[in-house]
Amino acid sequence: MTVRAAVAGASGYAGGELLRVLAGHPEVEVGALTGNSNAGQRFGALQPHLVPFADRVLEETSAEVLRGHDVVFLALPHGQSAAVAEQLGTAADGPLVIDCGADFRLADAADWERYYGTPHAGTWPYGLPELPGARAALRGSKRVAVPGCFPTAVSLALVPAFAGALADSEAPEAVIVAATGTSGAGKALKPHLLGSEVMGSMSPYGVGGGHRHTPEMIQNLSAAAGRRVSVSFTPTLAPMARGILATCSAKAAPGTTAEQLRAVYEKAYQDEPFVTVLPEGQWPATASVVASNSVHLQVAHDPDAARLLVVAAVDNLTKGTAGGAVQSMNLALGLDEGLGLSTIGVAP
Amino acid sequence: MTVRAAVAGASGYAGGELLRVLAGHPEVEVGALTGNSNAGQRFGALQPHLVPFADRVLEETSAEVLRGHDVVFLALPHGQSAAVAEQLGTAADGPLVIDCGADFRLADAADWERYYGTPHAGTWPYGLPELPGARAALRGSKRVAVPGCFPTAVSLALVPAFAGALADSEAPEAVIVAATGTSGAGKALKPHLLGSEVMGSMSPYGVGGGHRHTPEMIQNLSAAAGRRVSVSFTPTLAPMARGILATCSAKAAPGTTAEQLRAVYEKAYQDEPFVTVLPEGQWPATASVVASNSVHLQVAHDPDAARLLVVAAVDNLTKGTAGGAVQSMNLALGLDEGLGLSTIGVAP
Amino acid sequence: MTVRAAVAGASGYAGGELLRVLAGHPEVEVGALTGNSNAGQRFGALQPHLVPFADRVLEETSAEVLRGHDVVFLALPHGQSAAVAEQLGTAADGPLVIDCGADFRLADAADWERYYGTPHAGTWPYGLPELPGARAALRGSKRVAVPGCFPTAVSLALVPAFAGALADSEAPEAVIVAATGTSGAGKALKPHLLGSEVMGSMSPYGVGGGHRHTPEMIQNLSAAAGRRVSVSFTPTLAPMARGILATCSAKAAPGTTAEQLRAVYEKAYQDEPFVTVLPEGQWPATASVVASNSVHLQVAHDPDAARLLVVAAVDNLTKGTAGGAVQSMNLALGLDEGLGLSTIGVAP
Amino acid sequence: MTVRAAVAGASGYAGGELLRVLAGHPEVEVGALTGNSNAGQRFGALQPHLVPFADRVLEETSAEVLRGHDVVFLALPHGQSAAVAEQLGTAADGPLVIDCGADFRLADAADWERYYGTPHAGTWPYGLPELPGARAALRGSKRVAVPGCFPTAVSLALVPAFAGALADSEAPEAVIVAATGTSGAGKALKPHLLGSEVMGSMSPYGVGGGHRHTPEMIQNLSAAAGRRVSVSFTPTLAPMARGILATCSAKAAPGTTAEQLRAVYEKAYQDEPFVTVLPEGQWPATASVVASNSVHLQVAHDPDAARLLVVAAVDNLTKGTAGGAVQSMNLALGLDEGLGLSTIGVAP
Repeated sequence: MTVRAAVAGASGYAGGELLRVLAGHPEVEVGALTGNSNAGQRFGALQPHLVPFADRVLEETSAEVLRGHDVVFLALPHGQSAAVAEQLGTAADGPLVIDCGADFRLADAADWERYYGTPHAGTWPYGLPELPGARAALRGSKRVAVPGCFPTAVSLALVPAFAGALADSEAPEAVIVAATGTSGAGKALKPHLLGSEVMGSMSPYGVGGGHRHTPEMIQNLSAAAGRRVSVSFTPTLAPMARGILATCSAKAAPGTTAEQLRAVYEKAYQDEPFVTVLPEGQWPATASVVASNSVHLQVAHDPDAARLLVVAAVDNLTKGTAGGAVQSMNLALGLDEGLGLSTIGVAP
Repeated sequence: MTVRAAVAGASGYAGGELLRVLAGHPEVEVGALTGNSNAGQRFGALQPHLVPFADRVLEETSAEVLRGHDVVFLALPHGQSAAVAEQLGTAADGPLVIDCGADFRLADAADWERYYGTPHAGTWPYGLPELPGARAALRGSKRVAVPGCFPTAVSLALVPAFAGALADSEAPEAVIVAATGTSGAGKALKPHLLGSEVMGSMSPYGVGGGHRHTPEMIQNLSAAAGRRVSVSFTPTLAPMARGILATCSAKAAPGTTAEQLRAVYEKAYQDEPFVTVLPEGQWPATASVVASNSVHLQVAHDPDAARLLVVAAVDNLTKGTAGGAVQSMNLALGLDEGLGLSTIGVAP
Repeated sequence: MTVRAAVAGASGYAGGELLRVLAGHPEVEVGALTGNSNAGQRFGALQPHLVPFADRVLEETSAEVLRGHDVVFLALPHGQSAAVAEQLGTAADGPLVIDCGADFRLADAADWERYYGTPHAGTWPYGLPELPGARAALRGSKRVAVPGCFPTAVSLALVPAFAGALADSEAPEAVIVAATGTSGAGKALKPHLLGSEVMGSMSPYGVGGGHRHTPEMIQNLSAAAGRRVSVSFTPTLAPMARGILATCSAKAAPGTTAEQLRAVYEKAYQDEPFVTVLPEGQWPATASVVASNSVHLQVAHDPDAARLLVVAAVDNLTKGTAGGAVQSMNLALGLDEGLGLSTIGVAP
Repeated sequence: MTVRAAVAGASGYAGGELLRVLAGHPEVEVGALTGNSNAGQRFGALQPHLVPFADRVLEETSAEVLRGHDVVFLALPHGQSAAVAEQLGTAADGPLVIDCGADFRLADAADWERYYGTPHAGTWPYGLPELPGARAALRGSKRVAVPGCFPTAVSLALVPAFAGALADSEAPEAVIVAATGTSGAGKALKPHLLGSEVMGSMSPYGVGGGHRHTPEMIQNLSAAAGRRVSVSFTPTLAPMARGILATCSAKAAPGTTAEQLRAVYEKAYQDEPFVTVLPEGQWPATASVVASNSVHLQVAHDPDAARLLVVAAVDNLTKGTAGGAVQSMNLALGLDEGLGLSTIGVAP
């Protein structure tokens, strides 16, 4: 089986990472590469690290160009995917459409409208296979909503705690502070993303609940808890290009112990090839997961503060976007779920 | 008035920063520079950025060498200050001793013994002048315990919230995640501190309440709250040499509003030259405070999560150690509190 | 004597560094801060590290605003200084004008026109006091052309070799590769200056003689050699915000020895407070000179390659721009040359 | 064909990169992992990014453990490979031995003894297939000497210029300044390799001809030129974990033009999958080749300085060590030369 895949938004960081992963996938042949402002340019000038595609020319993003592929990856600014997806149609022989944007992640239309300010476009099967029930929805689907990078890290970190009732269920809450590499902010030319500003500096943004990934976290954690989980989420920008370190905590349910915590996490992920619960005493480092589809987790119980802590490291561009997207593609197409994906990071 | 100051532990990062700050102080003349493993070496080989001291030779740390100075700064590994301090004595004409280590920070002997595993050496006036009551204790004192770098950031971030009853006082708690530059870990040759490991990577340590700065934060926040505050503290190591970004949150007291929060913080720090509450919409970045004695703060209220958030940026070596130490020295000696200290950071 | 100084271009990196240095100068009072695109904005939003100026408002750059100051620093894009300077006039009671741009650095009009493509505006006294003859021209001058950051490093590195005939004088040549921090490229929003692109990456630019600092280096080295020196100059962009490391080499004159080389450099700079020839075996690191007015130099002789090597580290923004500008201001005004300047770097 | 490969020195950076590359090689099965000081430790504690090997235990490096593999990679400190190789023997059915150390790179015993101070152990086929004649020597060989990381970059950059007589052949010389990421210095615990020292700093080392890679460059360039090439080589340490940017220049032969230069390089590498001569106007960046086996090159002619410039970017650990080693392994075993190797870098 050879799958022909197109990437819309190929000149951005998510698009570039999709191509890096797809180039190593044994069943995929890369078709059209599209963009908007850069259409017509030699691809090698835009993404010089993607040598095999250097002589390609970026095409204009349109349904005409994208149609005729088996899979279409959309790595477009939020709000642009719905229109393209609609034009591609849902015919049985139409393409599998995988949206790396936010448009179809949220089930709740009110949440969408509050955080994005536009009408809700719908909800697609959620591309985080490790979540309870997610695989069944992804298998054979013609549509996939790739999770946000922060919700990927945070959901894998906290869902077992809420699903396993280790976290308090009376007034369930989580406090999350996550550091992200600058690639998470994309290639936009903004002053605070200049190298001179970023190097040697940490700074927060979207403090106080404003970040658009917050409702997505609430959705996933609440599903696990069986009731609404209150989430305080603060993202920070770190002086590195890739990687998310999510430090997540939740009030511990009465009686929770460190041993229980470890046991529940080890059990939850024992068959998950892309989630590693590190041995006791070893803490995740984002460097260990760079360019890999791995998530590294570690857990701790703080009896004095009566909180449980879970720290997750992921690569925002790989497992957090492109790797996760390909993992879901594999499921949707009936391929081996891990095909073309690596658990090995690039370190140091 | 010219003050003769000695620095014990001059070859480390805290010692080097003390010298950088003291060299710019109009009333200070730098006397002995001491160390242990490096004693006898040309100072320029150890701290090449400190050009005016390059031709000095590092002396052995001993009471004999340190005695005869007006001020002795101790930048020694934790547990070594008490012995030196005792030998220096407390005669009226003896030196002002300023300990940058942890030995005399904690008032509670049980806390000390639990976290440090040795007998408690005592408690000295606490060198964070911006805390309620601290200045009075520092003025004229012959002893100063310089706060830990994390507690400096966290206390300035959260004390007004607890003192002003904006944070919940029923079951007061705080969740703190703080990123620190690697200089906070000192010059020790440990594999995880190698540049190859640190660059491009974020990782946590001391997760689950184990970090020794935790009881110091609890002490300061509890004093402000008037009852014991429960603290969950997670430090993370960031790929930068200097700076702490402390993301602090606490359950909001019922009825707390964003306006109140801002008003309380602006009032609390309106006369503090080294604490800047940033205008609404602007968030602290550690780069803005590098090599300065400034603390930059911003506040937010998250009504959905019912938490208030305060983010603080400090330079762990300057306001977090050496600058704070000199600020306290000024108070102890009756000099202008800001002498030799700058609010201006080195950016970009 | 209190000197009132205005800074035109205060929102850029050079302008910000001028303010950082001037704020610590005991005889300077900072007057107008001007800009163009950012005029009207609160200064704290543009340069948050400059706390004492946070509440100022950026004014429009114009002769009206700048006039009436004792000193006017121009930190404008190349080509904009001449017009402003002309409007400020050269009356005896007019301001000292110090241009941090390139407009008045080159003595040769043809060089200027070839590299900048516009008519030559003239030549002002050259603000590198350590060069032979420079101090005499700067003392009492009403005009100063601040050298480029690369020429500062390279001239101090190689002038003694050419002036002392240690470098070959038959066909004098130099090969220079210099790494610069990203602040050297300014705050312009260009894709290759994004943090995501810069971190973890080294890349060259202006290869093959195209960089505009090349004729300035040739001018200074040729003056020292007494005949035209051929220069191959390659700048590279390094993943750091500040600092230049210039690796300079020249064919050795026959018979030159390592001992001679060291002796000539130590003699050349023995009375220069801002130039440190490091002891044998110690090599310059840019971190040692960050935010200082120091230049660190080391020399070597490679008998196999018959070349002499000189490596210089400077902070491109301090000694390479703002510190050098203030040093020249001191000379021009008859103040102590080192007033307000520090030899101490911010490290680590 | 499945090849069983052992890695000696698996806990170091070169060893780790060998495993990362070998894990993706379709014909390789990884056998023993050995080390010395870390023998007996769980591998996941030493190299957490290599998830598939996490539960392995590091064995002691010895001929007994290594024997019985089809291929043995030696990633040992210089001087240790010869003894191990001798014990492994040269029987027809013995293992292919690939030495990532320096022991067998130099043909000239005097060079070896001068730079390494020990007796010369011999010379093995040189593992840089892109050099003239190298492939023939590697095919079917039981021994491979992997080139140094700097000589890999520099030889690919300058050999066509010398072989094609574009560089001056009267008194052939080259001046090379190369920036390397810190992983090039290995995992040794040395103060100047600490993150706090490295971040934000550039510094040179081995200035004046002292670096041990110098004779290897001279060997390769001289072979191309047909006479001894004089080389001035200065390495610098850059604030990044991986990558080499080699800025290489040579006196141009009379009459050399930019067009010739480009034509010669494009021709030299037109059939080399791992060498990309970038289009005019585009310069190499180390980020583009991270974790890839690619070399990116660009050329320029500087008529004023009468020099030609070639800049090369490689990943010191991949093409510069482990990728190059696997490329040579493929040749030696008669496999497709590019098997298991990627031209795609991990960027940003």
